[in-house]
Amino acid sequence: MKPQPFDRSKHIYRNNDFAELIKDAVRFFNGTPVHPLPLPEAFDGTGVYALYYTGGHGLYEKYAQLNRLAYSHPIYVGKAVPRGWRQSRTTGNRTEASKELHHRLREHVRSITFGQDLVLADFSCRFVIFEHEASDMIGTVEAALIKHHKPLWNTVVDGFGNHDPGKGRYQQARSDWDVIHPGRTWADKCQGTPKVRPAITAAIASHLQLLG
Amino acid sequence: MKPQPFDRSKHIYRNNDFAELIKDAVRFFNGTPVHPLPLPEAFDGTGVYALYYTGGHGLYEKYAQLNRLAYSHPIYVGKAVPRGWRQSRTTGNRTEASKELHHRLREHVRSITFGQDLVLADFSCRFVIFEHEASDMIGTVEAALIKHHKPLWNTVVDGFGNHDPGKGRYQQARSDWDVIHPGRTWADKCQGTPKVRPAITAAIASHLQLLG
Repeated sequence: MKPQPFDRSKHIYRNNDFAELIKDAVRFFNGTPVHPLPLPEAFDGTGVYALYYTGGHGLYEKYAQLNRLAYSHPIYVGKAVPRGWRQSRTTGNRTEASKELHHRLREHVRSITFGQDLVLADFSCRFVIFEHEASDMIGTVEAALIKHHKPLWNTVVDGFGNHDPGKGRYQQARSDWDVIHPGRTWADKCQGTPKVRPAITAAIASHLQLLG
Repeated sequence: MKPQPFDRSKHIYRNNDFAELIKDAVRFFNGTPVHPLPLPEAFDGTGVYALYYTGGHGLYEKYAQLNRLAYSHPIYVGKAVPRGWRQSRTTGNRTEASKELHHRLREHVRSITFGQDLVLADFSCRFVIFEHEASDMIGTVEAALIKHHKPLWNTVVDGFGNHDPGKGRYQQARSDWDVIHPGRTWADKCQGTPKVRPAITAAIASHLQLLG
């Protein structure tokens, strides 16, 4: 086939419905029940979740204050996509049969439990399950929530959601999160040069000043 | 606030518009012009692209055959998201000012040029630019295209889109793609035990049997 001359404008997709749809999903998210951690039961599903902090940790006082009357300012937003999603080895029908969201939240519970100066009872959680074809919205809704809320542990403090890098990869540095909340055993194995605590806490302070 | 009893059904988002919207974007994608590589000029934008193969490589004959009359079966689908998208350090307005999509395609041109038994002229490319808020659709449209087309280099042959892992991370194995198309210098530094060529070519053959 004969190639057409290059014209950038022919490659731009225009549609305003998308922005509205994401807003609808975010509104729904903001109206879902908030639960303490750990969640009382295992459940099926993939989706998007937010963690809220309302405890007394000196670094996070601002969050306790902002969330006093409503859970409006997450400290972390994350997603759990269907297993094999990146390689699209999964079908839409499988999304409700996997416990990915529950597993992901359980991992976070573990991190918080190990993390120095953190108390699990100070955290609450909100989540939305996206089933079938709607599971394709998961990444976008997560991104929209992060863009809107700029949660501290997604933006300034890197590493809360990390996994054990595994054998042969411990050359990397401990994450910011592991510097300020040491306790995860795999993080202690990381040999790279991490950021120093004062640099991280200064970044936290200046970020939280802009929130709310 | 008093936590509500756990009720999974209260957390499920339901909306059928989303599936329709993605279908619309995919239809648009399939109607955009196809270009030879490299693209004739640099251009701004982030988005989704597909690479089509129509050459004579023995492993990929099926693709040459399937794409004889129309570019309908990509060998690879990828995305270029706004810089800093994962940390949402970017604003929607920036998406059209970055050349991410063009850069990503240029990287692929480089990989193909280095890859043994591959000829750049055998590849063509289609792409769609998503601007402003629509840039949030990029991941979903990419996933939909991969799910639909199951492109070989996204599913069975892993590694085409990889970057140089960098100093301290060469313990990992060469990717499948680098085993069958050796030539990228950084891949040669990888010290792990890669899959053997016959295992990969057998997987390719059985995957391509199911296509078309």
